[in-house]
Amino acid sequence: MGIGDQDDRPAGASPILAGKTVISVDAMGGDRGPAAVVAGCAISARKNPDIGFILHGRRDELEPLVARRNLGDRCVIHDAAEVVTMDAKPSIVMRRGQNTSMWSAIDSVRNREATVAVSCGNTGALMALSMVRLRKLPGVNRPAIACLWPSRNANGYAVMLDVGADVRADDSDLLQYALMGASYARNGLDIRRPRVGLLNVGTEEHKGHPELKSAHALIATAAVDAEFDFVGYVEGGDIPRGGVDVIVTDGFTGNVALKTAEGIASMIREFLRQAFRHSFLSRIAAILAYTSLQRLSQRIDPRRVNGGVFLGLNGTVVKSHGSADATGVSAAIKLAFQLAHAGFSDRLAARVASTGHPQGDMSS
Amino acid sequence: MGIGDQDDRPAGASPILAGKTVISVDAMGGDRGPAAVVAGCAISARKNPDIGFILHGRRDELEPLVARRNLGDRCVIHDAAEVVTMDAKPSIVMRRGQNTSMWSAIDSVRNREATVAVSCGNTGALMALSMVRLRKLPGVNRPAIACLWPSRNANGYAVMLDVGADVRADDSDLLQYALMGASYARNGLDIRRPRVGLLNVGTEEHKGHPELKSAHALIATAAVDAEFDFVGYVEGGDIPRGGVDVIVTDGFTGNVALKTAEGIASMIREFLRQAFRHSFLSRIAAILAYTSLQRLSQRIDPRRVNGGVFLGLNGTVVKSHGSADATGVSAAIKLAFQLAHAGFSDRLAARVASTGHPQGDMSS
Repeated sequence: MGIGDQDDRPAGASPILAGKTVISVDAMGGDRGPAAVVAGCAISARKNPDIGFILHGRRDELEPLVARRNLGDRCVIHDAAEVVTMDAKPSIVMRRGQNTSMWSAIDSVRNREATVAVSCGNTGALMALSMVRLRKLPGVNRPAIACLWPSRNANGYAVMLDVGADVRADDSDLLQYALMGASYARNGLDIRRPRVGLLNVGTEEHKGHPELKSAHALIATAAVDAEFDFVGYVEGGDIPRGGVDVIVTDGFTGNVALKTAEGIASMIREFLRQAFRHSFLSRIAAILAYTSLQRLSQRIDPRRVNGGVFLGLNGTVVKSHGSADATGVSAAIKLAFQLAHAGFSDRLAARVASTGHPQGDMSS
Repeated sequence: MGIGDQDDRPAGASPILAGKTVISVDAMGGDRGPAAVVAGCAISARKNPDIGFILHGRRDELEPLVARRNLGDRCVIHDAAEVVTMDAKPSIVMRRGQNTSMWSAIDSVRNREATVAVSCGNTGALMALSMVRLRKLPGVNRPAIACLWPSRNANGYAVMLDVGADVRADDSDLLQYALMGASYARNGLDIRRPRVGLLNVGTEEHKGHPELKSAHALIATAAVDAEFDFVGYVEGGDIPRGGVDVIVTDGFTGNVALKTAEGIASMIREFLRQAFRHSFLSRIAAILAYTSLQRLSQRIDPRRVNGGVFLGLNGTVVKSHGSADATGVSAAIKLAFQLAHAGFSDRLAARVASTGHPQGDMSS
């Protein structure tokens, strides 16, 4: 079966989605299957009357799920027969993935039916397909994946990029990451004037790789026109400390830092559970402290910061964890809505295009 | 005043230190001053009858502290008039630091009065002085700093190197880190056959920088003769997961990962404290769970894994946190004792020298 064989008019024209901010959702890619994805859509739909969905996947599987969740008046299904598996090779998906739900979800952004797509699927394949179908923004050399970190900042988050789109980044790539990250913080986190830091092994000017020194100079120069504050070098310990909203680094370092932090947080959560099971008194304590511990657990719950965002393409793609449950999917959709609603894709494009041109769009 | 003007015979010959495993301690470098360092020595001395100290610093300050802690029969003081401050430039210390306690502490290793030195001082200066006074081991291109991570491993720790001696590392450097790290795990953590992993952004063979692929091949080849198990690529999340005892990476990535993990752990500890202060019930709970929470707190207490170790020099130097209190200093001294007692410096030298020579010392 082809893609969208019953829905090949632009979805924006569908009366169901009229007046809604439309998110394109790959319903098939996650480890938990389409039921978790549709359940996540339902959570978001309940909280937000302005959201609409294009769901991509097997119509015969999706229709009953949509009916059960009462989403019939909020979403359109684009039929796609195939699924990109977690172990699929990106190069194969790029050549033969035309009938997959992932391809279809990205093409809804390409066709301007939606400005943001969400997928829980294979990251490598999603990045590769996004690159070939959406293409890089003019002026962007390396697209990046940005993610949110828990932080002591007032809004609770900091943005880090790149966390794994490309293991390399030269000085001008790092400058673009700074511009894209600042724009993302402005549109995704409502931070009017983001504070941008460059990740290094010390805050002294003489430390680090030569390309970092050069990037430091480029970002400092660009900060004035791009309306962010450059706080200079930051270290790993500064990421959750607050004081910085956007942390710029190459995809190798960012990926290691992200996965290390997730691993440490997960270990501490496990130790904490063990501590509360350790004795009779500690079990009682766990009951008494239930509300407070739930609050703690929410503050460091990786599902609540679920959603890496691909930046630097003609359109925005939100990558949700493969293992995301309904709560995780809903968090990714919330982020996608915020970005779509803010007109982020167009603003980011304007920002990148205006680098070095002070007459550019200053609101992006 | 010169260094050791009253103690210029080898300290090993001092009757006070006869039969003891002698640790050379820079008593002046830490943020908390010599009182915390001497208090740390006293904790270790109480627990371990076989340990002796050469304390380096201002005799007039150290003598009363040593007397108060009843350490007179366990240590010798080497008088050193000057202190390396935390903001001192390594290049200046290398040229003009002859009268500092740090220089004196390293020279006790150089003179074979001790095989391991401990300092809470300025890391950059300590590394620079260690390099010029102890010199690199034959066959080592880049010395490394190794540190311990909390882990789900049976012994509770994993070793990571390099965490900041040098921001660069090529494939042969990474091979040497694997050899040195395995030797450290064997002698410092009593792991007979360490499992060594190479840090990357994915466990698939095709991922990462080209020098990582080359290092992967070199380490896999060396593993047989060097008697460790090479588990291949590991990711950031694998560091605390268990399953790997030695994580090999360049000093830039390792330093970012270490500081990020410390920052995340510190943030979670703070959130946990807030959670227990949040309500009347949670305060009661904190009292009931006191013992269990103390146990948790100890498992993730950075003071208990205090001590980065400089590897690849003619002698071993343990760097304690600048802010270490008596508990932290004592942890660093315990590690130094274990390494000195195991004859680690000589074993490591033999291991590095035997790379590629199967007839080398297989016990190191």
